[in-house]
Amino acid sequence: MSEQTKAQLVAYLKNAHALEQMSLQMTQAAAKAANDPQLRELFQHHHDETQDHERLIRQRIEAHGETPSAARDIAARVAAMGKGLAAMIPKDTPGRLARDGYVQEQTEIASYELLSRVAERAGDAETAEVARRILQNERETADKIAGTWDRAAELSLGAASSSA
Amino acid sequence: MSEQTKAQLVAYLKNAHALEQMSLQMTQAAAKAANDPQLRELFQHHHDETQDHERLIRQRIEAHGETPSAARDIAARVAAMGKGLAAMIPKDTPGRLARDGYVQEQTEIASYELLSRVAERAGDAETAEVARRILQNERETADKIAGTWDRAAELSLGAASSSA
Repeated sequence: MSEQTKAQLVAYLKNAHALEQMSLQMTQAAAKAANDPQLRELFQHHHDETQDHERLIRQRIEAHGETPSAARDIAARVAAMGKGLAAMIPKDTPGRLARDGYVQEQTEIASYELLSRVAERAGDAETAEVARRILQNERETADKIAGTWDRAAELSLGAASSSA
Repeated sequence: MSEQTKAQLVAYLKNAHALEQMSLQMTQAAAKAANDPQLRELFQHHHDETQDHERLIRQRIEAHGETPSAARDIAARVAAMGKGLAAMIPKDTPGRLARDGYVQEQTEIASYELLSRVAERAGDAETAEVARRILQNERETADKIAGTWDRAAELSLGAASSSA
């Protein structure tokens, strides 16, 4: 593997790792904020899965003799994104949680679609396999969240009526 | 429709409109930045479609006697999000464009999934129909972008080699 190819592969791995660190924070916050038991369980379950993902990706970064970016750098990035996103979203919790969770999953899906292909072409079969395995789980989680749109919309209107 | 229900529906409509304004800026910037003809055509085509979406959603906001948020408010939000996102993404253009575009589409998909359901429950059939129609187009665009992962990964590694 050329130095340039390796640098590109490691950049994708570090991006995936940053997203997993964001996901750890987001799933924990979402599980805590969710009043609805179904949403709470979904986010708590995915928080546990995300701990595995973080470890798997960290190990692949270390296999290339590198170390992941520090969590404190990620925190600043999450804060910057949150500031932008928060302003965009109607202030009702069930809709916001479902949407935030869905967008987070889709961001990870895009990341793993690219990482698996970059790793395959770079000849790193182990990273490609890890990326495909995590991708499968992120897809399932996105589908589960998409299964809550009806309930989120209902709760969202319910929250509006009951807060009046 | 109660005042609370209407307020919630209008909040979802304004969110969708803000996303369409973001999309107008992003698709234009992405079409300009893309060196790859396939990606450029894809973003340019969706920029044209997005002009229709912006108008359709604006008309639904006006049908409820409201006006969309000013574009200058959106610009500040996009800047804040961009600052957070840019730091997360490996610095290669084809991968970044595909991923940014995909995440933007998925954000809009989440928004229209919720808006169509909130509008349906609120008894606003026309908004529900507009939301479902745009949703279909955003899905098709997300699929088209997902069809470019192979090419984006290849270009991404090619860009790394040729810039060495």
